[in-house]
Amino acid sequence: MLSLDLSLVEPRLSRTEMDAGAPAAVAALRSLAGRTCPGAGMLGWLDLPEAPAEAIGRIADWGKRVQDDSECLLVIGIGGSYLGARAAIEALRSAATFPVYFAGTDLCPERHELLRREIGGRRYSVCVISKSGTTIEPAIALRLWRSILVERSGPAAAKLVTAVTDRSSGALRRLALREGWRTFDIPPDVGGRFSVLSPVGLLPCAAAGLPIGALLEGARAGRGRWLRPEPSNDALRYALARHLLHRKGCAIEVLSTFHPSLASLAEWWKQLAGESEGKAGGGLFPASAIMTTDLHSLGQYLQDGSRSLIETFLSVPPPAPAVAIPAEEEDADGLNYLAGTRLDAVNRRAFEGTREAHAAGGIPVVTIEAPAMTPETLGALFFYFEVAVAVSGLLGGVNPFDQPGVEEYKRRMFRLLGRPGATP
Amino acid sequence: MLSLDLSLVEPRLSRTEMDAGAPAAVAALRSLAGRTCPGAGMLGWLDLPEAPAEAIGRIADWGKRVQDDSECLLVIGIGGSYLGARAAIEALRSAATFPVYFAGTDLCPERHELLRREIGGRRYSVCVISKSGTTIEPAIALRLWRSILVERSGPAAAKLVTAVTDRSSGALRRLALREGWRTFDIPPDVGGRFSVLSPVGLLPCAAAGLPIGALLEGARAGRGRWLRPEPSNDALRYALARHLLHRKGCAIEVLSTFHPSLASLAEWWKQLAGESEGKAGGGLFPASAIMTTDLHSLGQYLQDGSRSLIETFLSVPPPAPAVAIPAEEEDADGLNYLAGTRLDAVNRRAFEGTREAHAAGGIPVVTIEAPAMTPETLGALFFYFEVAVAVSGLLGGVNPFDQPGVEEYKRRMFRLLGRPGATP
Repeated sequence: MLSLDLSLVEPRLSRTEMDAGAPAAVAALRSLAGRTCPGAGMLGWLDLPEAPAEAIGRIADWGKRVQDDSECLLVIGIGGSYLGARAAIEALRSAATFPVYFAGTDLCPERHELLRREIGGRRYSVCVISKSGTTIEPAIALRLWRSILVERSGPAAAKLVTAVTDRSSGALRRLALREGWRTFDIPPDVGGRFSVLSPVGLLPCAAAGLPIGALLEGARAGRGRWLRPEPSNDALRYALARHLLHRKGCAIEVLSTFHPSLASLAEWWKQLAGESEGKAGGGLFPASAIMTTDLHSLGQYLQDGSRSLIETFLSVPPPAPAVAIPAEEEDADGLNYLAGTRLDAVNRRAFEGTREAHAAGGIPVVTIEAPAMTPETLGALFFYFEVAVAVSGLLGGVNPFDQPGVEEYKRRMFRLLGRPGATP
Repeated sequence: MLSLDLSLVEPRLSRTEMDAGAPAAVAALRSLAGRTCPGAGMLGWLDLPEAPAEAIGRIADWGKRVQDDSECLLVIGIGGSYLGARAAIEALRSAATFPVYFAGTDLCPERHELLRREIGGRRYSVCVISKSGTTIEPAIALRLWRSILVERSGPAAAKLVTAVTDRSSGALRRLALREGWRTFDIPPDVGGRFSVLSPVGLLPCAAAGLPIGALLEGARAGRGRWLRPEPSNDALRYALARHLLHRKGCAIEVLSTFHPSLASLAEWWKQLAGESEGKAGGGLFPASAIMTTDLHSLGQYLQDGSRSLIETFLSVPPPAPAVAIPAEEEDADGLNYLAGTRLDAVNRRAFEGTREAHAAGGIPVVTIEAPAMTPETLGALFFYFEVAVAVSGLLGGVNPFDQPGVEEYKRRMFRLLGRPGATP
């Protein structure tokens, strides 16, 4: 399934140091799996891979209904309410059969107009995802897109809207009840960034035509492996390496991939890592690099800049169309030695050469690898990263499941907006 | 034009420290403007804003011909050969009138197929941009897209191809001569990341329909201000603040913007800063955040994570379509206090609240601001960042105009690919 290669974190981090750190990592994982760790009230994500067939069936049926009722799906949500679904749909692009768009991810009027033009006159369903219903970006987007829908379809619009929200309270739940929208519950013990395997992530995937059963099956297989409190557990080893490297002065972790279709997966990972560990004045800063593109912008820095970073290569190739390099008679560019070679093979060599070069340049390099991107592999990968980030957060002494810093800018924004009752 | 606010770098960096550092910054700028600094052979970019009207006219005429001859332009180039043009076309999207696509920016066969499908049967012109012609991504892309063009148009294909390359030597120059392609020169004393105001960046902009004269006019106005070796020079002050904050332990500079249409400008900036300063084991790591999107992934970290970063807000609003928040009778989401308010006004408050919150959270905050994104402002901004990054590189004791680390992965990749004569 997924393999982990830590040989290139040496010499920065030695095997002896890894061995010495293992007992603490095992203890952290035990407290996670045993639900005695800080934030233990938010561990519902550990059980998401075990969703009953009936619940999965309801989500899959909903996806089919969206496909029958409309020409595209508009998902309205921000942060953890869309990053996982978008990551899955892009990573598994070749398996997706139905267009899904994302709205409510910013406050930019230009973007709203561009999306409106792109959707055009097509009949769209709406899936609005928000625990509270008052997060400002999706709340505004819902007002905007509902008003278009109602204008077009009148009272029938209600049949095209689904709300994914808290099971009993909050503005979106009340609105859905009043309007008679279909609803799905966000489990109360699952935080946004850990929600990709809940209805939050699965509904958009189902509408896109992805096999959500296979996604969960992969996650279930991973759950069997990566919750074991053993030093050989790869999720634990990755967590421990990141934690120890951070303690040794690494400030940044760059997730690098040679597969542009994993760019949104990297964004999902950035939220997962950044929100779980970036607190109390600590945590690795999560960044990403999409290669070979970013080799031509960040490559110089990675090779030769400040040695304060870890590079984690994620190599899980999507199905590659057979694009081969054409021969040319005069060989002006000297590429004829590659004529007939497939582009994905060249890309693979670029990855191997880059990894070698960066390790030789003094960066501790981690490799997470699988032979091919499939729904099962992706499901496993989601769970893998979730466990790893939770464990390294616990090793760092924080509650990986809260986000105490996210209200501060909102408080100030609401004051500036003049919201009734905003605190000064 | 552009204003710089450094009041929120305090208390991390005091005015006294800025004053103490000013003489060194003035000396660095003097060595830049006087062309006595390290890398003085690569300072052709200082003169690009002064391009003669005749040269600008030829570029503008070429753009019109592309529009007449074809339905879209395909730019083939990587790194500095496309980042500036893409940044300009996206930042000035509302002024662009003709579709421009970018190819050769990775080695991913899936992306090649997606672009091929997007272009479909449309008649396209090709503008291939490469100093040497042997950089592997654009060289392969040129083979792929030429073979399609020749298949479709036979010998007439040559009229649709333009090469932007070294004026006398290199594989692409030879190929262009042999095939009879139209050519433009890349000035020998301008590096890729400083080339946006040369034909490299201006040709795609001209094809897109942007007023390149206005871009250069803005840069020229900036040149008059930001090459002055005076402590009040804003480009110098920004450079000095970054340099001093890096010396005080900041490892990362996050360029944050609340305008998603500036996302590609942030990518351009990342290359400019990362390649100029990321060497000899030092340099700020350049990252970007596109708000409000990334507030919901990186916001927690920015508010409360490791205090090893600088945040530079770039606020230059694009023309905003008038999208207003609709009223709703029952006000379930509590947003009626904003009914009728324009989305860009809410976005502005989100920016102000975020900046306040992050500064209060202990991040040194820089603000670079202009009232509106126009071609003149963008031209000025390009030149501003170029001068600032050059000066802070010089203050850091490096040659900001070389990139000694970029060959290492290529050497290893070519060995793995079995290129004839590759070094082991």
